[in-house]
Amino acid sequence: MAPTVACEIVFKQLFYDVERIRQKNPIIHNISNLVVMPITANLLLSLGASPIMAHAQEELAEILSLAKALVINIGTLDDYWINSITMAQEIALQTKIPIAFDPVGVGASHYRTETAKKILSRGVQVIRGNASEIMALVDPHIKTKGVDSLQTSESALPSAVRLAKKYHCTVVVSGKIDLIVDQSNYVTLQCGTPLFTKVVGMGCSLTAIIGSFLAVNQDPFLAAVHAMTIFGLTGELAAKTALGPGSFYTQLLDHFYKLEPSSLESLVLNRQYARKGIME
Amino acid sequence: MAPTVACEIVFKQLFYDVERIRQKNPIIHNISNLVVMPITANLLLSLGASPIMAHAQEELAEILSLAKALVINIGTLDDYWINSITMAQEIALQTKIPIAFDPVGVGASHYRTETAKKILSRGVQVIRGNASEIMALVDPHIKTKGVDSLQTSESALPSAVRLAKKYHCTVVVSGKIDLIVDQSNYVTLQCGTPLFTKVVGMGCSLTAIIGSFLAVNQDPFLAAVHAMTIFGLTGELAAKTALGPGSFYTQLLDHFYKLEPSSLESLVLNRQYARKGIME
Amino acid sequence: MAPTVACEIVFKQLFYDVERIRQKNPIIHNISNLVVMPITANLLLSLGASPIMAHAQEELAEILSLAKALVINIGTLDDYWINSITMAQEIALQTKIPIAFDPVGVGASHYRTETAKKILSRGVQVIRGNASEIMALVDPHIKTKGVDSLQTSESALPSAVRLAKKYHCTVVVSGKIDLIVDQSNYVTLQCGTPLFTKVVGMGCSLTAIIGSFLAVNQDPFLAAVHAMTIFGLTGELAAKTALGPGSFYTQLLDHFYKLEPSSLESLVLNRQYARKGIME
Repeated sequence: MAPTVACEIVFKQLFYDVERIRQKNPIIHNISNLVVMPITANLLLSLGASPIMAHAQEELAEILSLAKALVINIGTLDDYWINSITMAQEIALQTKIPIAFDPVGVGASHYRTETAKKILSRGVQVIRGNASEIMALVDPHIKTKGVDSLQTSESALPSAVRLAKKYHCTVVVSGKIDLIVDQSNYVTLQCGTPLFTKVVGMGCSLTAIIGSFLAVNQDPFLAAVHAMTIFGLTGELAAKTALGPGSFYTQLLDHFYKLEPSSLESLVLNRQYARKGIME
Repeated sequence: MAPTVACEIVFKQLFYDVERIRQKNPIIHNISNLVVMPITANLLLSLGASPIMAHAQEELAEILSLAKALVINIGTLDDYWINSITMAQEIALQTKIPIAFDPVGVGASHYRTETAKKILSRGVQVIRGNASEIMALVDPHIKTKGVDSLQTSESALPSAVRLAKKYHCTVVVSGKIDLIVDQSNYVTLQCGTPLFTKVVGMGCSLTAIIGSFLAVNQDPFLAAVHAMTIFGLTGELAAKTALGPGSFYTQLLDHFYKLEPSSLESLVLNRQYARKGIME
Repeated sequence: MAPTVACEIVFKQLFYDVERIRQKNPIIHNISNLVVMPITANLLLSLGASPIMAHAQEELAEILSLAKALVINIGTLDDYWINSITMAQEIALQTKIPIAFDPVGVGASHYRTETAKKILSRGVQVIRGNASEIMALVDPHIKTKGVDSLQTSESALPSAVRLAKKYHCTVVVSGKIDLIVDQSNYVTLQCGTPLFTKVVGMGCSLTAIIGSFLAVNQDPFLAAVHAMTIFGLTGELAAKTALGPGSFYTQLLDHFYKLEPSSLESLVLNRQYARKGIME
C-alpha cells in the first residue's frame, strides 16, 4: 500500500485552492438544514467563501446564477424543502454548477433514503457521509444510529465504490479514517480529532467546505481530498488548545481564518496519503 | 423545612445517570424551535447524548423507533409543527418513550396556551417552564413577558402542584430557586447563575437535558432533580471564569464535556435540597 | 465638512439609551431568518433587550401587544413568511410599534426586491442594508453579490436619500463608512472592524439592535446613530483581543454585556461624526 499521492503535491495544490477561495470569495448556495445553518455559514465565511442560504422556489434560479457551487443537505427535510432541493439541483445541473451532497441520517427512515437516492440519480459531483450513511445507500439492511455512524470507514469501501460507479461521482466517507473514492481510485487519509463528533454540524459543514473547493477546482476528486485534508488538519490545530467542544468550535473558526502555509505544511507533510486503484 | 434528600444520595445517583448517558449515547429526538436548535444540540452532545432533530411526518415513526426520549418545544410553533408534535407525541406514548415538554412562551398567546394544554392532556413525563409559564397553564389571567418570567418560582408552587396532579406528571419550575414537583412531593433547589438568562435557549436546552436523563432513569422525578442539579452546577463552574454570555456558553459546553465527579462533588454536597410532602 | 454633531452629545444620549434598554428589557419581536436567529437573539440579550421570535399568524397580534419594536428580516423568505411579515407589519403600524427593516440580499432576486418594496411602501421607521442592497432598491440594474456588498457606502448616498424621501424613513447604509440618512440630514460615521464581515448575521443583528434603540428612543434618526455607534465601537473592543471570527463573536457578546461608559467614552470622543444637510 505505497502512497502514490506525494504529500508535497497535495500540499501545494491544496493551498492554491485555499488562496483562490480567499481571493474570489465564491458564493456557495446552501440548501441546508435548520440545525446547522449558522454553524456552516460561519465556517464558510472563516475559510473565505461567501455562503447564501435561500430555499424559496420563486428565487432559486436567480440565486443560483450568482453561485459557484450548490450544497444540498437533507438533515431536516420535509416536502417543501425536497421540492426546493429538486428545483435547485436541476438548475445547477443545467447551468454546470458543481454540487456537493450530504445525505444526513440516510438509513434512519425510508423517506430520507428515497430522497437521497433521487438526488444521486439526478447527479452530484461529490457525496459525503459517514460509513453508516454511505452503506445505507447500497444496503437497505444497514442499521444507522441517526447522524452518528456505527460502522468504520473501511467497512464502507465496497459501498462507496459501488456508489461512485453507479452514480459517476466522488464518494467521501468521513470518520477516523477518511476515504475519498471515485470510479477508479481511492485515497485514504487519517487526520482530524474526536472533538469533531461533539459539535453539531461538523459533517454538514465539511460537505459545504467540499462545495467551496468544488467552486475553485474542477476535479471533484482532488477538491474532496483537499477539503478533507484542510478540515482535518485545521481541526487538529484547534484541538491542541481546546478545553472542550465549545472552545474547539471557536478556535476552529479562528484557525480557518488565520490559515497560513507555514502552519499547515509540517502537518501535511507528516500525513500519509494512500492512493490505490480500484479493481474492476 | 428539613432536607429529606441526602446530598450524598443525590450525588451518587446523579453521576450514575451521567455515566449512563455517556456510555449509551441515547438518541434524543427533539421537535425543537428554530432559534435554539444548534444551541440545544451542542449541549446534548457535550453531555454525551445524541440529538436528532426531525419534523417530517413521513419519517417520525421511524426516527422515534431509534430514540430513547422525545423533547417537545413550542417556541416557534405553527400549524405544520403542531401536527408534527401531535404525531410524534402519540407515537412516543404508544411506544413508551418518555417525553419532556417545554411550553415556551405559554400565556403570551391563546394559540400557545391551547397547544400546550393539548400536549399536557395527551400526557408527558416532565414539563419544565419558568414561573410565569407554569402559572399561565393554570390561571389564564397570569401575565407573561414572552420567554422571561415575571414571577418567582415559589409563587408558582400551587400551580405546579395542580398541574402535577391534573396531568400525572413531574413539573419543573426553573428560576433563581428551582422547584421539582410531582403528585405527592416537591424538592426545592438553589443553584445556577444569572448568566443563564443572558444566553438564548438555556431553558429549552435544560428541558432537552431532562429528556436525556429520562432516557437513562425511569423515575421522572429523580431524572428531573438530577438534570436540574447538573445543569445548575455546571453553569456555576462556567460562570466562575466567564467574562460575559459569550464565553459563558463556550465554557458551559467545555465543562459539560469534561464533567468529573471530583469537580462536582463538593458543589453538590454544599447544596441544600429540601423535599417536602404535598398536602392533599 | 465640519462635524455638526458634537461627540459629547452623542455619547451622553447614546449611553442614556443603553441604560434604558438594560432597565426596561424591551421585548423586540423579530421575524428573522433561519440562519441568524440564535446569533441575533444572543446579541439582543447581551445588550439587555428581550428577543421574541414568532411567526404564526394565529398569535402575531398577541405577541406584538407585548413588544416595543418589530424587526423584519427577509433573509430566508418564502410565501408563508411573507404573509407573516405582512400581518406583523400591519399590526405594528396600527399599534404604533416602531419597525426596523433588513432587506437581506435585495437585488439578488426579483422576489426579494418586490417583497422589500412592498414592506417599504407600507412603512418602516428605519431600513438598514449594505450599499448594494440600498442601491438595488432604487436602481434595478445594480448588481448584488448576495449578502455582501460590491459597492462603497458613499456611492449609495444618492439612493439612500431617495429612499428616505420616498418612504419617509431613516436609511442606514452600513459598511467601512456608515451613513445614516433621513429626509433632510445625514451623518457619516467610521467605526467597526473587518471581522464583522466574517461572522454570519452581523448585519441582521445590527438591524435588530437598531430595533432595540427604537424601543427606547422616539427619534428614529438618533436611535439609528446610537445603534450604529455602539455596535461599531463594541466591535472594535472585541476585535482588539480576538484571534479570528470565532473568538470575535464570543467577545462581542461579552463586551455588549459589560458595556460601561468608561470603556466607550474615549472611543466615542475620538470619533468623527459629520452631519450634513441634504440639498432639495
